[in-house]
Amino acid sequence: MDLRTMDLNADLGEGFGVWRLGDDSALMSVVTSANIACGFHAGDPLIIRLTCRAAVAHGVAIGAQVSYRDLAGFGRRAMDVPFDELAAEILYQLSALDGIARSCGGRVSYVKPHGALYNRVVHDRGQAAAVAEAVLSFDPSLPVLTLPGSVLAEVDDELQVVSECYADRAYTPEGTLVPRRSPVAVVTDPQEVAERAVRMAVAGEVEAIDGTVVPVSARSICVHGDTPGAVELARSVRGALSDAGVQIIPFV
Amino acid sequence: MDLRTMDLNADLGEGFGVWRLGDDSALMSVVTSANIACGFHAGDPLIIRLTCRAAVAHGVAIGAQVSYRDLAGFGRRAMDVPFDELAAEILYQLSALDGIARSCGGRVSYVKPHGALYNRVVHDRGQAAAVAEAVLSFDPSLPVLTLPGSVLAEVDDELQVVSECYADRAYTPEGTLVPRRSPVAVVTDPQEVAERAVRMAVAGEVEAIDGTVVPVSARSICVHGDTPGAVELARSVRGALSDAGVQIIPFV
Amino acid sequence: MDLRTMDLNADLGEGFGVWRLGDDSALMSVVTSANIACGFHAGDPLIIRLTCRAAVAHGVAIGAQVSYRDLAGFGRRAMDVPFDELAAEILYQLSALDGIARSCGGRVSYVKPHGALYNRVVHDRGQAAAVAEAVLSFDPSLPVLTLPGSVLAEVDDELQVVSECYADRAYTPEGTLVPRRSPVAVVTDPQEVAERAVRMAVAGEVEAIDGTVVPVSARSICVHGDTPGAVELARSVRGALSDAGVQIIPFV
Amino acid sequence: MDLRTMDLNADLGEGFGVWRLGDDSALMSVVTSANIACGFHAGDPLIIRLTCRAAVAHGVAIGAQVSYRDLAGFGRRAMDVPFDELAAEILYQLSALDGIARSCGGRVSYVKPHGALYNRVVHDRGQAAAVAEAVLSFDPSLPVLTLPGSVLAEVDDELQVVSECYADRAYTPEGTLVPRRSPVAVVTDPQEVAERAVRMAVAGEVEAIDGTVVPVSARSICVHGDTPGAVELARSVRGALSDAGVQIIPFV
Repeated sequence: MDLRTMDLNADLGEGFGVWRLGDDSALMSVVTSANIACGFHAGDPLIIRLTCRAAVAHGVAIGAQVSYRDLAGFGRRAMDVPFDELAAEILYQLSALDGIARSCGGRVSYVKPHGALYNRVVHDRGQAAAVAEAVLSFDPSLPVLTLPGSVLAEVDDELQVVSECYADRAYTPEGTLVPRRSPVAVVTDPQEVAERAVRMAVAGEVEAIDGTVVPVSARSICVHGDTPGAVELARSVRGALSDAGVQIIPFV
Repeated sequence: MDLRTMDLNADLGEGFGVWRLGDDSALMSVVTSANIACGFHAGDPLIIRLTCRAAVAHGVAIGAQVSYRDLAGFGRRAMDVPFDELAAEILYQLSALDGIARSCGGRVSYVKPHGALYNRVVHDRGQAAAVAEAVLSFDPSLPVLTLPGSVLAEVDDELQVVSECYADRAYTPEGTLVPRRSPVAVVTDPQEVAERAVRMAVAGEVEAIDGTVVPVSARSICVHGDTPGAVELARSVRGALSDAGVQIIPFV
Repeated sequence: MDLRTMDLNADLGEGFGVWRLGDDSALMSVVTSANIACGFHAGDPLIIRLTCRAAVAHGVAIGAQVSYRDLAGFGRRAMDVPFDELAAEILYQLSALDGIARSCGGRVSYVKPHGALYNRVVHDRGQAAAVAEAVLSFDPSLPVLTLPGSVLAEVDDELQVVSECYADRAYTPEGTLVPRRSPVAVVTDPQEVAERAVRMAVAGEVEAIDGTVVPVSARSICVHGDTPGAVELARSVRGALSDAGVQIIPFV
Repeated sequence: MDLRTMDLNADLGEGFGVWRLGDDSALMSVVTSANIACGFHAGDPLIIRLTCRAAVAHGVAIGAQVSYRDLAGFGRRAMDVPFDELAAEILYQLSALDGIARSCGGRVSYVKPHGALYNRVVHDRGQAAAVAEAVLSFDPSLPVLTLPGSVLAEVDDELQVVSECYADRAYTPEGTLVPRRSPVAVVTDPQEVAERAVRMAVAGEVEAIDGTVVPVSARSICVHGDTPGAVELARSVRGALSDAGVQIIPFV
């Protein structure tokens, strides 16, 4: 019998100063990879350090969730940042997180752009190239977690790109996510989400909104922790994957 | 014959966004150690990257000039930052700079607190301990550049502390700097500054304001670049040291 | 019979970007004065605008909760800010809030320093004078809400200073608050808090920790909204004051 | 004889903290309207206050140079800011500047978007509407200074829009500016710049790059102060206008 594996990733450490977002301590025991905010959209140094410590303690892989410099907008506002500035901003965040992670006994093992930058590098070749340049100049072996079909996969042969998928998001027949503004964008039934996750992990496919079966070759499933019931949903996904014989381990 | 050595350090990369401070390109060819702002009082990621590149190209050692988080006050406003927050803020800055330096072929080889933090850790045991904790958790071999007599030297046996001196500042008979508010705080005659630098490097002493000769056991002389004539003064210090047979090399 | 009046003030609008703190909508229906964060320790422009709108809709007076520029520390870290800088920073925050309040049909009708600045101006004559200069240059008729005994009351004859008191905090025989680090600093029993509030409002006195009865000549009681049970506590204070025949109206 | 009038506007107060940009004191004696940075792309509170004081002392009109929240990018990086957030951000800046101006004996008498926002509101109807909403909610009588043909003029009938022109920029036959990336975008000969300014003011026209004469119905000419020779150029424009009998006064 063939042993399947899957990674579960979630955003963690998304507070700043006195503020917190999501139930980090609960999520940390569910996921295998933590996308940790690096200070530009969230994450002050102390929160980063505490989150890295918790990740190391739980054996959770640490990913750098790099962002536009936009604390007031939580990195959700797309910005036209010139190549050199964006590459340096990514490199700064990546470096800051890695140093803190190492002081906690861990290290950054992947990169995942956040918010508007995550969406932008799917189609903006210039910004994707800036992200690639930063990652490659830091450590060419670091993979970047992104959506399937992102131009990030095309801007530099050296860059390692890994695809993720979403068990709670509807897919188009083309294999892209149904935009959030659509009423059917999000799958809310926990049972259905868990079943989709298992099908993604075991069969490498998902049923699109028109019933088409679409291939999904993702090595990680993204789960959320900042909405009511999100942690429970993540737990049920993890439970269903385990029950289906999928080994849940970091993708890196 | 006994070969004396001395390091010359200066603050570099003190711009932010469109703004610049001091003549970095001139200073970079004079000093052997560059205290590079890490983003909290100055230094955006692109400026940091360009400054690191220049330092590596000139064979200048890179120091992390860590600061309070105070861009509007250029880190000159003392802050009561709790231990855990301050340690994490220092670690964040140190890590960010080191990662960028490494991507340029260099690395952080020492730490120098900036502005109000520099003055505070001379006497504030709690904040000094936070700086020490951050540096030790990052890399216990990194020395911290500070004033002689700083409590930084006492807070942790493991921490390496290196003293610096100022050729253009008047000294008290106790070996401390005459406060800036005094009219005799700064030595302005270039010839006199150069002679004081040589005496510091060769004889390990300086004449205090009352004529007393005070021992100075510094491994680095701090020079400035942000005032008119500062770069020329730094050049004349370097020239005088060379003429006196002092080898000018990084202290680390 | 003599009709007593009392104001209830609380901190509101203490979120930033995606983050929120406390139950603003519940508190807004309990208090008569809202201390609204102006952007330096909390409060982005949209949150400020929405909070002002809600205050105007509820007939709640708007106060400018001015702070050190310290978003990462929530204004809780004391800073040595020079007079001119601090006065300008206070004036900037006050102006920003007032303009937004006016666009909502209200206006700033008092000032209350926040966090470390609130504590500092009780004893630091220089910083108190900077706050006074800012307020007087903006509108000399604006009162500043502070602790009894603050030097704010002494730095400028023109400045109007109004005292507030805390029904849930223990008092020393000298009439100052027992510091938070003391285990008896906070009164937690809701019944006791409500009774203390009534005694403060009706008799103008409070029982100190040693049993001494201390005069309290405050025109406002500060209540909190950022801890579990805080809103219920505030409601019970309001209820008890009403039951005791105290009219609850803004102090300005 | 018909007396012509013209306004000269320039960006002032574009420093932050220790940093400065341009020769403000020289420019202040040349222009009649000062576009003052409000803190989001430049301009800390003390710089704003000193700049307002100088403007009032020189009888120079104060304009709010509102921007995206982007200190690191000097407001030059276009941002996709949602309507409500952008309107609140504009209102906040406008209010902060106006309060400070009033404390100095002046007031904000117009608004001029800065950098990427200035360019964006020429064609982005949503962002233009957000600027309009903010200005109208603050003071419907405040005019906004913009390029001719901006959609700002179309988004709300109530909004007053005033056009400005550039004596040192080349024009297309359509009356728009030749983009900066073109080698002929900037007119550098001082004599030619001065003559173009006079023709704009007296005849209301400019010669485009293809020789066509294009009508220019601007009430203000924008001059610069942040490049070498810029202040001299501004002075020569002012001198030439005076010599041609044009009265140089604020447009508001």
